Amino acid sequence: MKSDLDTRMQTNNLDALIVIGNATYNPPMYYLTGGGHITGATLIKKRGSQPVLYCNDMERGEASKSGLKVIPDGTYNNDSLLKEAQGDSLLASAFRYKRMFIDQGVHGKIGLYGTADIGSEFAIFTRLQKLMSDSEFVGESHDNSLFMYAMETKDDAEVARIRRMGMITTTVVGRVADYLTSCQVRNDELLLGEDGTPLTIADVKSRIDLWLAELGAGNPEGTIFAIGRDSGIPHSIGTPTDLLRLGQTIVFDIYPCEAGGGYFYDFTRTWSLGYATPQAQKLYDEVKTVFEKVRDNLDLNAPFKDYQRLVCEEFEKNGHQTPLHTPAPVEGYVHSIGHGVGLNIHERPFSRLTSSDDNILKPGVVITSEPGLYYPEKGMGVRIEDTFWVRPDGIMEVLAEYPYDFVLKMKNWGR
Amino acid sequence: MKSDLDTRMQTNNLDALIVIGNATYNPPMYYLTGGGHITGATLIKKRGSQPVLYCNDMERGEASKSGLKVIPDGTYNNDSLLKEAQGDSLLASAFRYKRMFIDQGVHGKIGLYGTADIGSEFAIFTRLQKLMSDSEFVGESHDNSLFMYAMETKDDAEVARIRRMGMITTTVVGRVADYLTSCQVRNDELLLGEDGTPLTIADVKSRIDLWLAELGAGNPEGTIFAIGRDSGIPHSIGTPTDLLRLGQTIVFDIYPCEAGGGYFYDFTRTWSLGYATPQAQKLYDEVKTVFEKVRDNLDLNAPFKDYQRLVCEEFEKNGHQTPLHTPAPVEGYVHSIGHGVGLNIHERPFSRLTSSDDNILKPGVVITSEPGLYYPEKGMGVRIEDTFWVRPDGIMEVLAEYPYDFVLKMKNWGR
Repeated sequence: MKSDLDTRMQTNNLDALIVIGNATYNPPMYYLTGGGHITGATLIKKRGSQPVLYCNDMERGEASKSGLKVIPDGTYNNDSLLKEAQGDSLLASAFRYKRMFIDQGVHGKIGLYGTADIGSEFAIFTRLQKLMSDSEFVGESHDNSLFMYAMETKDDAEVARIRRMGMITTTVVGRVADYLTSCQVRNDELLLGEDGTPLTIADVKSRIDLWLAELGAGNPEGTIFAIGRDSGIPHSIGTPTDLLRLGQTIVFDIYPCEAGGGYFYDFTRTWSLGYATPQAQKLYDEVKTVFEKVRDNLDLNAPFKDYQRLVCEEFEKNGHQTPLHTPAPVEGYVHSIGHGVGLNIHERPFSRLTSSDDNILKPGVVITSEPGLYYPEKGMGVRIEDTFWVRPDGIMEVLAEYPYDFVLKMKNWGR
Repeated sequence: MKSDLDTRMQTNNLDALIVIGNATYNPPMYYLTGGGHITGATLIKKRGSQPVLYCNDMERGEASKSGLKVIPDGTYNNDSLLKEAQGDSLLASAFRYKRMFIDQGVHGKIGLYGTADIGSEFAIFTRLQKLMSDSEFVGESHDNSLFMYAMETKDDAEVARIRRMGMITTTVVGRVADYLTSCQVRNDELLLGEDGTPLTIADVKSRIDLWLAELGAGNPEGTIFAIGRDSGIPHSIGTPTDLLRLGQTIVFDIYPCEAGGGYFYDFTRTWSLGYATPQAQKLYDEVKTVFEKVRDNLDLNAPFKDYQRLVCEEFEKNGHQTPLHTPAPVEGYVHSIGHGVGLNIHERPFSRLTSSDDNILKPGVVITSEPGLYYPEKGMGVRIEDTFWVRPDGIMEVLAEYPYDFVLKMKNWGR
């Protein structure tokens, strides 16, 4: 939680931190400002103090909605900084940061955060390091930065926002299921759209985006809607021109966020329209069994990677390759069991076998569980995913319920 | 154009460049890969050679759609890199980059690009610089990086994509105008929604997002739809709970991009519903006159900032403050006349008075022209903006036509 930031700063011996960039698509800046139309801003926080936000003069109105102390960029005269830097705009930026640090009384070990242009910031902070020899600028591994540690546990307001995204997500999934099962079927094979032509992945995705927008969600990362061979490649998002066919596995992995940036939800179902091949049904049943085993065994304060090991062992018993004994497998179980969800679609805790032991199911953590099996050469793949809140009372609560049907009955076709 | 990259690399004495991050919301990576679901990738380009793309093993399918040579990350064993780095994951990443450079035969002056986590990349490249003493890692100012120079001129395929976004943008603007003018009006003042309650800015924005999604556009940066005082603050995006009222200036600045990231369009109209106050009408007429003066005077190969000076002079003649004689004005004309548009909503050429002389209206450039006048304390603001393509034959072509009506007649109200 936000209140953990100062503790983590102390653990890391940081005297201050600086966050750079926009308030959207930039989780640390969003976390401290609450988002909004704030671009190319700079936030400085001394340990134990409230952050100060430097913003574009024209965005002072938006920036003040953050509730933080706002200082317009115009406070520092760009022309004179550029003159002082003899025309080197990167050095002028370094001078500007230096003035900010002086004005905020900041020096010592300073952490650098934010999603922004890495080339210019590398050049600026390399210069700044030379200008401020009494300070040390440090960066952390993205996945284990102090922000990721703070964001790892959510307060009730954050959980409510993720839950709301879960409701929107499952509403859209339900609409997609209704739409697909209402389609006419040609030659016992192809789904047809309203205009009588075969339905494509692109057609389905445009409806998904429309429904998400209608319900107030953004979809910055896109949607995985992959059929047949693509469903066997976990991160194939689906081929736009592929046709919707009966009896093929469809992996539908949807991970929208609040419109304008904000909290994500993460959800997957696998469907087979009309009927399933025995091979696909067997694969689905295996994944479902493991999904339930994980769900029923999630324990408060257990290391998350214990469940990765469990899933690998279960799948290996059935003869599938997994990362436990096969480095980077390309078929079988090829990823990890889950990850935290919040302002980042992937955040702490992580569940890789190599993840550190402090990735645990602490109270307030929100995680996915998403076992899957992938056989691209057999043209099939299966994944089932829900998002869980680790409640302070130890109960693992699914934040949005949705049925687990694999075969979806077609309303206008049957055998 | 893309073919300018090697020339610019030569000008900057770069032996190679490295681009880091996702293919979406990361213009240099999008530019070289064509976008798609490629996350946390690394692209290395030697001067004079085709780029090589290192990607997540699970995203090799998506990455191969780029047409580039793709090397899966699994080529380098993370566990042994981490062991070699004695558990320092940032040093392990530096080792990994070093191996890539060795395998690609790259050393010398290497430019660093991409939108990503600045903290971890600063830490990694600081370590890498120490590991590769025969090379020098450099960053450029974002707005004037070699990518911005290359992207500055568009080929026909890029212009066609921007034009298509212009068509979508103006279609949505037309729908918004139709919707607003069809509303019922209460007490000669408030617009009402279908349910009889007063219409809010949030209501209008949710329709905008819906229509954009329906037509295949994304809206990652949001929309400015600001009424009254907010319309006088150029970068206020509008207050969600503000009500739609007759006779107030509404600045509607819409800048969507292709769904999934890609090319932007940028467009603004100012409206007053039902009627306009004489003060607002006068302000509108002044802006319109200047807008037309700029449009009619755009010259092939002219420095873009010449038009900023022209606009300042014209507005100052009428008694408005401008950046020409007032540093960072908060009322009057407070920004610059325009900017390039492409994979970045703001890119070269720039038109600030301080912009370098090489920001010129070269053939193939796509720019905005967007004069405006802002009086927040009087509760009004006006901006008019179109996007122009500087054609190779010297004609300045508006990429999407749309009428310039200021007062929109209400269908169910009149005086």
